[in-house]
Amino acid sequence: MTNQYLNKLQAGLERTQNPSVLGLDPNLSYLPESIIDAAKSRGKVGPEAVGEAFTNFNCALLEAVHDLIPAVKFQAACYEQYGLPGLQALADSLDCARQLGMVTILDAKRNDIGNSAAAYARAYLTGSPLPNDEEYRFLNPDAITLNGYLGIDGIKPFLQACQEEGKGCFILVRTSNPSAGDLQDRVLEDGSTVYEAMADLVRDWSDTYDPDSEWSWVGAVVGATWPSQARALRRHMPRQMFLIPGYGAQGGGAQDAVAGFQQGKGGLVNASRSLMLAWQKSPESDHNFARATRQQALCMRADLQEALAHA
Amino acid sequence: MTNQYLNKLQAGLERTQNPSVLGLDPNLSYLPESIIDAAKSRGKVGPEAVGEAFTNFNCALLEAVHDLIPAVKFQAACYEQYGLPGLQALADSLDCARQLGMVTILDAKRNDIGNSAAAYARAYLTGSPLPNDEEYRFLNPDAITLNGYLGIDGIKPFLQACQEEGKGCFILVRTSNPSAGDLQDRVLEDGSTVYEAMADLVRDWSDTYDPDSEWSWVGAVVGATWPSQARALRRHMPRQMFLIPGYGAQGGGAQDAVAGFQQGKGGLVNASRSLMLAWQKSPESDHNFARATRQQALCMRADLQEALAHA
Repeated sequence: MTNQYLNKLQAGLERTQNPSVLGLDPNLSYLPESIIDAAKSRGKVGPEAVGEAFTNFNCALLEAVHDLIPAVKFQAACYEQYGLPGLQALADSLDCARQLGMVTILDAKRNDIGNSAAAYARAYLTGSPLPNDEEYRFLNPDAITLNGYLGIDGIKPFLQACQEEGKGCFILVRTSNPSAGDLQDRVLEDGSTVYEAMADLVRDWSDTYDPDSEWSWVGAVVGATWPSQARALRRHMPRQMFLIPGYGAQGGGAQDAVAGFQQGKGGLVNASRSLMLAWQKSPESDHNFARATRQQALCMRADLQEALAHA
Repeated sequence: MTNQYLNKLQAGLERTQNPSVLGLDPNLSYLPESIIDAAKSRGKVGPEAVGEAFTNFNCALLEAVHDLIPAVKFQAACYEQYGLPGLQALADSLDCARQLGMVTILDAKRNDIGNSAAAYARAYLTGSPLPNDEEYRFLNPDAITLNGYLGIDGIKPFLQACQEEGKGCFILVRTSNPSAGDLQDRVLEDGSTVYEAMADLVRDWSDTYDPDSEWSWVGAVVGATWPSQARALRRHMPRQMFLIPGYGAQGGGAQDAVAGFQQGKGGLVNASRSLMLAWQKSPESDHNFARATRQQALCMRADLQEALAHA
């Protein structure tokens, strides 16, 4: 059975020849002054001004790179910190990305027991019932990130939703942050690590809910800051798309980022700050912030293509 | 240094002699018909009707039990599934609970790498910067639930926020769902389990960020469905308040729920469906749904007090 998210992703990767993901994790200090001033000049104040600025910044970046980059990842925390106007900005930015044909990933790392996981799955992947038997959908991304600490019954509602709706997910396996090893690197009695045990769970869940795809819509988050682990994890998860954070600002290089690829495939490399903040390092004025991001996106594609050619 | 959340919780426990937590996890099918009809009759439709119904239902239950139950836990997923009107209902319900003097816990199980965890901490525990140097706060609960799979740098921003703002958190250790053991029960090379390793991390983080409280504001989620594990975990975490889900609808009894208590203290027992849905088992009409919840809350308090007296 064909999965809409996988088809869209595959087409995007072929069209752009680029496994990059634009991470849109806005904070107030990341925005050029001109974007804030424009929102204020339209009479917006407080969180509404920030929300409008986020939307305009995001949509300008998406416009600038959509022919180059196949997918965008939105960090939920950045929008949640501005309440309802922040979430409206997330919804509007998702709309921009959809209209430009990009694959949309919501980085929300949701997790809960079955009943509550089902409510999250309705919130982000399917839809919620209304009194008149209609259904309500708000954000509706193509894929979501999840945390599997609660085991299969916290993940199952999401997998069922993906299966029914043609969507995808990425489950945290080995994260990119310095203290990821506090729990994830602990060694089990059989000599494997906690993150390898999680990898095996992800593979098993994928084999149950998506046995047929060459690359599964059940993906894994595998940090670029740990290339030897990425190579080892590929053996545990032969069919998982890796969502790879940590390239750029977090210190991972292109060689590190593609360590888990298999014959040039199977990975998506996210960059957030290095793309969003390119304007701060550019000699041009901040009115050209989108052009600076486009130039950085071209560099990143070339960097990844070079690394893949020599992998 | 005194912590506002801990003081409020301690006062509430003394006032009510009841370690119960009212779990407000609303779904459309949980609501009496009269509540939906009332929202519709005021001209509300779609998600706005559901949001208004959630708020009215929640506030009626909070009014009915606030003299009996010291704390309320809101399941974020249930509100997120109705987008902006759902989150407005969460904000309004939090206001109700605050005005009634109850301790408010947001069950959001947030987790991310440092930068993004800091954005979540601003979203839920402190506040977010605005262009005019003011600060924006939306939900502002007294405490939040967290998932520690990413290690200390995913947790640290929350701990710093709690320390500065006098708030609290509960970190997932052993959850109440049937498949909790998929990862959490795996045995490490030293013979301990993954959930015991998580317990030791929680204790260490608490000892660093809150060394002095008799009961720490760094708490742990420990499911009532696994009493022998709760007793073992008390030895790992002598100062942690346990937030204990699983009582009632999930199958845990009062003896199970208090297994991790220490001389009658150190635990909060959550019940969601058994309290919210009491009206469905009551012979009275659904107009008296709040009275049915109050009667069930009295039973639950008596049940827990009896179990604690014989523990």
